Amino acid sequence: MNYRAIFYLFSLLLLVLGCAMATAVPVAWLMEDGIEVISKFAASALVVCVFSSLVFFKTRRRKNEPEFKTGAREGFLAVFLSWMGASLIGAIPFMAIGGMRFADSFFESASGLTTTGASVIESAIVLASGDTLDGGLESLPESLLYWRSLLNWLGGVGIVVFVLLIMPLLNPGQSGQQLYNAEVPGLKTSSDQATPRLASSVRIILFVYLMFTMLSTFCYLVGGMTFFDAVCHAFSTVSTGGFSTKTASISAYKSPFLQWSCIVFMLLSACNFTLIVKLFVSRSFQYFKDEEYKFFFWLTVISTLIVAVLLYVKCPQGIQGTDGGTIPRTVEGYLRAAAFQVSSIITTTGFATSDYTAWGIPAALIVLFLLMFPCGCGGSTAGGMKCVRVYLVFKLVLSEIRHCVFPRALTDIRLNGERMEASVISKMMAFLFLFLIIFLFVGAALPFLCDMDMVTAFTSSIACLSNIGPGMGKVSPNFTYAWMSDSAKYLLSFTMIAGRLELYTCLVILLPSFWKR
Amino acid sequence: MNYRAIFYLFSLLLLVLGCAMATAVPVAWLMEDGIEVISKFAASALVVCVFSSLVFFKTRRRKNEPEFKTGAREGFLAVFLSWMGASLIGAIPFMAIGGMRFADSFFESASGLTTTGASVIESAIVLASGDTLDGGLESLPESLLYWRSLLNWLGGVGIVVFVLLIMPLLNPGQSGQQLYNAEVPGLKTSSDQATPRLASSVRIILFVYLMFTMLSTFCYLVGGMTFFDAVCHAFSTVSTGGFSTKTASISAYKSPFLQWSCIVFMLLSACNFTLIVKLFVSRSFQYFKDEEYKFFFWLTVISTLIVAVLLYVKCPQGIQGTDGGTIPRTVEGYLRAAAFQVSSIITTTGFATSDYTAWGIPAALIVLFLLMFPCGCGGSTAGGMKCVRVYLVFKLVLSEIRHCVFPRALTDIRLNGERMEASVISKMMAFLFLFLIIFLFVGAALPFLCDMDMVTAFTSSIACLSNIGPGMGKVSPNFTYAWMSDSAKYLLSFTMIAGRLELYTCLVILLPSFWKR
Repeated sequence: MNYRAIFYLFSLLLLVLGCAMATAVPVAWLMEDGIEVISKFAASALVVCVFSSLVFFKTRRRKNEPEFKTGAREGFLAVFLSWMGASLIGAIPFMAIGGMRFADSFFESASGLTTTGASVIESAIVLASGDTLDGGLESLPESLLYWRSLLNWLGGVGIVVFVLLIMPLLNPGQSGQQLYNAEVPGLKTSSDQATPRLASSVRIILFVYLMFTMLSTFCYLVGGMTFFDAVCHAFSTVSTGGFSTKTASISAYKSPFLQWSCIVFMLLSACNFTLIVKLFVSRSFQYFKDEEYKFFFWLTVISTLIVAVLLYVKCPQGIQGTDGGTIPRTVEGYLRAAAFQVSSIITTTGFATSDYTAWGIPAALIVLFLLMFPCGCGGSTAGGMKCVRVYLVFKLVLSEIRHCVFPRALTDIRLNGERMEASVISKMMAFLFLFLIIFLFVGAALPFLCDMDMVTAFTSSIACLSNIGPGMGKVSPNFTYAWMSDSAKYLLSFTMIAGRLELYTCLVILLPSFWKR
Repeated sequence: MNYRAIFYLFSLLLLVLGCAMATAVPVAWLMEDGIEVISKFAASALVVCVFSSLVFFKTRRRKNEPEFKTGAREGFLAVFLSWMGASLIGAIPFMAIGGMRFADSFFESASGLTTTGASVIESAIVLASGDTLDGGLESLPESLLYWRSLLNWLGGVGIVVFVLLIMPLLNPGQSGQQLYNAEVPGLKTSSDQATPRLASSVRIILFVYLMFTMLSTFCYLVGGMTFFDAVCHAFSTVSTGGFSTKTASISAYKSPFLQWSCIVFMLLSACNFTLIVKLFVSRSFQYFKDEEYKFFFWLTVISTLIVAVLLYVKCPQGIQGTDGGTIPRTVEGYLRAAAFQVSSIITTTGFATSDYTAWGIPAALIVLFLLMFPCGCGGSTAGGMKCVRVYLVFKLVLSEIRHCVFPRALTDIRLNGERMEASVISKMMAFLFLFLIIFLFVGAALPFLCDMDMVTAFTSSIACLSNIGPGMGKVSPNFTYAWMSDSAKYLLSFTMIAGRLELYTCLVILLPSFWKR
């Protein structure tokens, strides 16, 4: 194992995170958070930057040295350590400025970086000092809220940039490519000649990411948010993260336009970014030629309609918003409430305008629960199984049913006209089973760590594994994860990281053979 | 499509069922059920026998005719129609003698034949006449209770005999073999030279089935049951069915010996019958050489211990039995309660000595819920995914994780030393996904048909799909399925049949191409 290369990569990441932390200093100054908050942010950023610079200069390649010799193992370990380390560093401001306990801070930070958006901040949270926090999110310094949203934003773009830009520094060949396949499925399925080289793709993706951020900031400003809130919400929308600056989430602003634009940007961010790259390169709109996008699109539309009709039939009195107000029983109101909750879950964002568990419609709950598995498209910032895999499962099952009756028929599985190799299918199936096994294992383990019912346990598990955030039962949008025991919080933090890194990266390091020479 | 061959096969099955129904006549006479019940049973049996004989003589092969030319399609359709037809015929006594409504009778009959053991008979059931049944199971004529248990017994042996003995009459080659692979996995995985030819295997399996029935009858007699109850319970134990003659199920007899012997016979019946065949042929005990059996064994033992420890820690006051009595907090008492509920679910029998939902331990509930998926071994009377498939999934996942780190390592999947072909693995994976898709689909559809919560919906779905019987929530052992709407009952009846026929057989007939020439 080439530990030097791993630490080199690790230090690079921490340096980026330290610089990001430094941007909170001017924010704290502009938002008038007081000298204590400013100095604490500055001190934290300085420590992280100095420490990572030291490691960087110690481990970097000297002028006459050959390139680092690394394999897949170094790559996996570096990715895993980086996400763990980044979650630890990200927790510092929550402890230093928010006064939160370590387990809470780590959970909040991991939740941010993995773009989960599950929070432990509520008015009843017990701080490290033994005091209780009053007033929830609104009582925190604004620079800390900015830090939460920034973690979302960094995490969302991080998974793409880290793998595509930083990993190749280590070894231009195999390891980056391999991790890249493990983490961003769908981005490589196309053999299209129009797709440019990797580095160029990354530049376009970064550009699009920034553009989406600015566009959504603009829409939120128009919808009535302050500039600060608009930027923070834009950060957590385009990353499909879901951290808000208000306890009532998006419905605090009571603006239908704002909610509709949030729906649009959530859905845009959960589409395969290669489609956007193609849009730029070949200047043609190919979304509906893509089988995964079609699946994602119809899944969203049909689920929204089912939920809206259920609401219309079963809730004649209007439904309660997360801000305490009532969403009236109008076609637009119910369609917006349904579209918002469906989009929020399928894109793994986790914003809410209404707590679906309070609707009292089990059928709607089940629709939303099922959406927690497929989630967005491959090659996006969304988590979960990814639509492309679920779509291919349906194709595989149909092909095998046909095979029973017509044993001599071809059983090729094709995606966008291209034949999938058997080894790719097998790896994908194994991934989905692994996903389900971890979902069931975490769901089964939680009630052993902390008193909770079955629905809460299983939905917490999937909400963290798919990087969504809110679940059902006692972790529904009106609640937080604050009431859980520390051990449950640690388990869920690891589940989020495992989900974000698409499982394999975290599980290979548990193999005894991984550590052998 | 060769409909004549299909009807020929169909009539054979109905004839067997008619003869079985005729055996209820002497039972009704011996148990003094009254002349009305005797004559109704006799009339029903006569009608079924006469009708099926007519079809049989009309469709059978004439002396100089060549053998029926049939393919896989005829086989699938015949199997599906037979199970549907048998469920319809089995419903006649419930309507004629019990006075039950058609939806209830069909559900009860399908539940019996598929060895599910889910019941709609409780004291509040509304009869076809509009009256309400008082007293539940105990108020029914004993010959009708015998018919319920007999349906279990016929269903259990039916799936083996029907496929191995009757199907080859149609076409000695392909179609029987193909269905056989689809329905009784594990029975063919061995290439062992000691395994005798098929027909001989079936004879041994039938002999073992009868032997188990007699042995368990004997044990139940010793445990304090009447001869009638002992035979009925033996029928539903060895078939892993689960119909009881008492509302309180097995705990009505308050005998620890009886409960332990029930546990033993449930577990024996859920083991792969080829192992028993091998025991007879090669006279060596090879159970622990079989990887699937080892998996099944340890799954049962570990789950029992977890549930027993949870009971011991969380229920200091003793737990309530289904008979209303208390199971005291002793090591034996709690171990027995845990072993009974675990065995009942993993073998898909569905007996109960205590309602686990009343324990108030979510962790134990989740353990039991997870056991509803793997269930017993292939080649047994148990339903569900089968241990062998779940075991192979774990092997596949582990192999793919290894493959990430060591791309050049071999990724063969082996079972008992033998390499599994990629096409077999692919078919198996597709089966498991199909199982999960149907589980989720039925669970999601139920709240649209009938008002119920998520836990009830999903556990009803898996309890019927895996042919277990009781679920959780409002279908836990203390409740029945009587309260559901007719449409929900029909959906669950089809789910049971689809689960029993291992899905493919039912789903191929939904393909439009199945019906084309």
